[in-house]
Order: sequence, then C-alpha cells, then structure tokens
Amino acid sequence: MERITSVGNARIKRLVSLRQKARTRREMKSFVIEGIRLFLDTPESFIREIYIDENYLSEVHEAAILDRLSRHQTFAVTPEVFAKVSDTVSPQGMLAVVSMPEYTADRILDGGSQHSHLILLLEDIQDPGNLGTMFRTAEAAGADGIIMTGNTVDVFNPKVVRSTMSAVFRVPFVYTDDMAGTVRKLQERGIWVFAACLEDSADYAGADYTKSCAVLIGNEGSGLKRETIAAAGSRIVIPMKGEIESLNAAVSAAVILFEAQRQRRMQ
Amino acid sequence: MERITSVGNARIKRLVSLRQKARTRREMKSFVIEGIRLFLDTPESFIREIYIDENYLSEVHEAAILDRLSRHQTFAVTPEVFAKVSDTVSPQGMLAVVSMPEYTADRILDGGSQHSHLILLLEDIQDPGNLGTMFRTAEAAGADGIIMTGNTVDVFNPKVVRSTMSAVFRVPFVYTDDMAGTVRKLQERGIWVFAACLEDSADYAGADYTKSCAVLIGNEGSGLKRETIAAAGSRIVIPMKGEIESLNAAVSAAVILFEAQRQRRMQ
Repeated sequence: MERITSVGNARIKRLVSLRQKARTRREMKSFVIEGIRLFLDTPESFIREIYIDENYLSEVHEAAILDRLSRHQTFAVTPEVFAKVSDTVSPQGMLAVVSMPEYTADRILDGGSQHSHLILLLEDIQDPGNLGTMFRTAEAAGADGIIMTGNTVDVFNPKVVRSTMSAVFRVPFVYTDDMAGTVRKLQERGIWVFAACLEDSADYAGADYTKSCAVLIGNEGSGLKRETIAAAGSRIVIPMKGEIESLNAAVSAAVILFEAQRQRRMQ
Repeated sequence: MERITSVGNARIKRLVSLRQKARTRREMKSFVIEGIRLFLDTPESFIREIYIDENYLSEVHEAAILDRLSRHQTFAVTPEVFAKVSDTVSPQGMLAVVSMPEYTADRILDGGSQHSHLILLLEDIQDPGNLGTMFRTAEAAGADGIIMTGNTVDVFNPKVVRSTMSAVFRVPFVYTDDMAGTVRKLQERGIWVFAACLEDSADYAGADYTKSCAVLIGNEGSGLKRETIAAAGSRIVIPMKGEIESLNAAVSAAVILFEAQRQRRMQ
C-alpha cells in the first residue's frame, strides 16, 4: 500500500479539486465519497481509488472494509493529509474516488414497463441537503428516476452525495435544458405531470396518482417557472395551516411521492 | 443610532457568544436571528436589539424595515464587525437579539380543546436542519406543538432558527427528561401515541389519525429508544422500496403528520 505524506502530492491536489469543483468532477467523470457507511454501500464496480488515514487504518478490523481495501488501489495518508482532503468536520478516516453513474432517459421511462411510472422532476433545486434527501426519498417511495434542470445543484457535490445515503448509485437521473419541453414529452407518452405550486392549485390529496405520473418540484425560493407550470397537466398544493408560506422542497416532494405510493398500495 | 466599529466591543463579544453557545442563550433567555425575511417575520414583542451593517443601512428603503429600526434599540456596525457576528456565508446585513419564546405543556394540550390533538414528539434529534424543518412542517400540518427530549439539538442554534422559517415563534414546544413517562401521560389523557420505528411496525397509512394523537420520531442514527417504543400505543412504519434503510427524520415526520392532516380533511 502506497503511503502519502505531503499535501503537495499530485493525487492529493486532485482529490481537493474533485471535492471542491463540479468542473473537475465532470472532466474526470468521477467524484469523492466519504465515510465508512457510504463506502460500504457503494457498489464495488464504481470504486477507483481509496484513501485512508493511517491512524484509522491501524484500527480497522472489519472484514468487509479490509476486503475492499485489498481489491482496490489504496493509499495510506497521514492524518494531516487526510484533514486536507476531508469535507467533514469530524472525518471518519476513509474516502474514495468513484465513477459517476450515468443513465439515459430511456432507463427512467423503461421503469414504467413493470408498473405505472412515478417520476420526480426538479427545477433549479439549490440546497445540497434538499437534493440529497430527495434522492433518498425517491428511492424509498419507489420512483423510477429523477429528471432535473441543469441549474440544479451538482449531484456529485459531497454534501449532496452524503445526504443521498448512497441512493445516488441506485436512482436513475438525467438532466434537461428545457423542463417545459420535457413535461410535454412525458405527457405525450401518457405520463400525467402534477406541478406543485401555491397558486390556483387543487388539494394534492384529491388527485389520482395510481396511473403513470410525474411530480414537479421547484426552486426553494422562487418555486416553479411560469412556463413549466403552464406545461403541466395539473397544479397541486399541500394545504397548510398557520402562517407558514411554503414547505421545505424536500418535504413537499416526500409528502406527494408517499401519497402516490400510499394510493398505489391501497388499490 | 449608536455606531460600533470594534470587534472588541462588549456587545459584539456577547453577540458572538449568543450565536455560538447554548449556555449563553439560556442564561440571557435570548438568541440571535439573522436575515431580513426572518427579521420581518419575528413578532415585534420579541425584538430586543438590532444590529445592522452600515453599508446595508445606507441602501435600505423598505418602509417595514425602517419602521422596525425606529422602534427598537439599533446599532450600526462596520462591515468587518458584521462579518464577525454573522453566522452565514453571505450575510444579508441585519441581525437581531430576540427573547426566547416560552411555553407550557398546558398550552400544547389546550390546543386540542378546539379539535383532536396532533402533537409531535422528538427524541434526541441532532441535525439542526432537521429540527428546524420539523418546526416548519409541524406548523403547516396544524400540529398543536412539539415535546422534545433535553438531548435534542438546541432550538435556538442559528441553523435551527433559520430552518424553522420563523415557525419557532409560533409552534409551542416544551422539553421532557422522561419521554416514556410523557408518552404514558399523554395516553392517560386520551392522546394515542404512534411510534415511528422499523421493527414490528404496521403500515402508517393503515392507522387512524382522526382522533387525538401524537407522533414519536427518534434520533437520526439510532432511532427511538426501546423504552420509549414500549410506552407507545402502536408502532408505525412508512413502507420503503429499494435498498434505503430509513428515511430522513424530518421527511418521516412530514409524511406522517400530513397523512394525519389528510385524513382529518377528508372526514
């Protein structure tokens, strides 16, 4: 196992760039995962390189971890070097460079061949925690995949990846530059699109989600764009009490996706 | 309006301590809110002192803001001083010291005099964003209040306060040192307690939330304690697809609270 002792090492510089810059991630078609749980949950085929704090390495006895270390290119780094590359306040001592999963729109649409489609459409989500949570929620709610605008926060941002709880490796996702156009195409294929928005909207709980459908969630501050809403089949709102003006975007997505799943289970 | 130019000023040191330390907040029965929106949404009676970046002050024309500045003790501070006291990466130029809202358990229980109770019970929630989101969600779902353990992250932590979107001033909350005992007391008063947990639990969507009830949500990593679950009337789970082991705690709370609200609307 090679040892790295300098923060000036070329691999270390590249790691920092991979952690900080979406452009480096895109160019190298790879990103960084951090933490033991996420490491163990990452499918074997995605792992390219492993970096481990040598202090942590001396304490590792778990067979599943040692097994993975033996099968991949692994670098032992000093605690100082690890602190430099870690994205977290309390690093667990292990991170890995992994390949980006790549999906096609067909993969998402094919999901509906076994059952009615359930697709999550995201317009310009900006908060990393929200996007990560929506991946985790989408998987748990049985969604076929996520279609999002190019202005959405980078999925491979370390905070997003952590919040997905490894769902980023299992939930298919693709990008669109024209969400209104995507909405129209989905509807031409018989997938009804519900836009979550506050104005002129019907109670979400009164809608029927048992047929193929998609749910559109907009930016945290400004919501969905006017033309995107106009393209959707219907507008839905989660009725709110009190003086709250809107729900958190990830909460809205969860409430609607699990209502869809509830209706499908109760059929 | 008094001007503060030094980070060594006693008020500035106290502000930093209020921002960073739960103990200072408890001692002074006050906390810091930051940002223009939160400032305007804070009920007038809670505001004690206002601190404003003098560069921002010279640009303020909004009547609602100027009006508030004129009615409270306001300090103009230099941009350097503001950067020192701000908790955010891109400060908006305004923060205020506000009084802690204080509630009694009776206030929460009295809520149910008009309708069936809906109470959120939180055990050892650790993530500030999760707790804040749960306040926002609880208000929107019409919950009467939140009862939480003393080990829950401090409600007046700046990240929690921001995530509540000012719901911290409207949703009554109290603490308990004995959640299992609290659960038993609620049940003696006819409030059925549902514990959200993964083992031996029934589909949450099959439960009846139209009568007075409370929903128990546990710690992000370890869930609810065994004795807390044992005290609850029933165990519920949100059925999950895929390989996800659990939902985000704030998402779980939202899905169950809005299912309760849905059932009550559809009655």
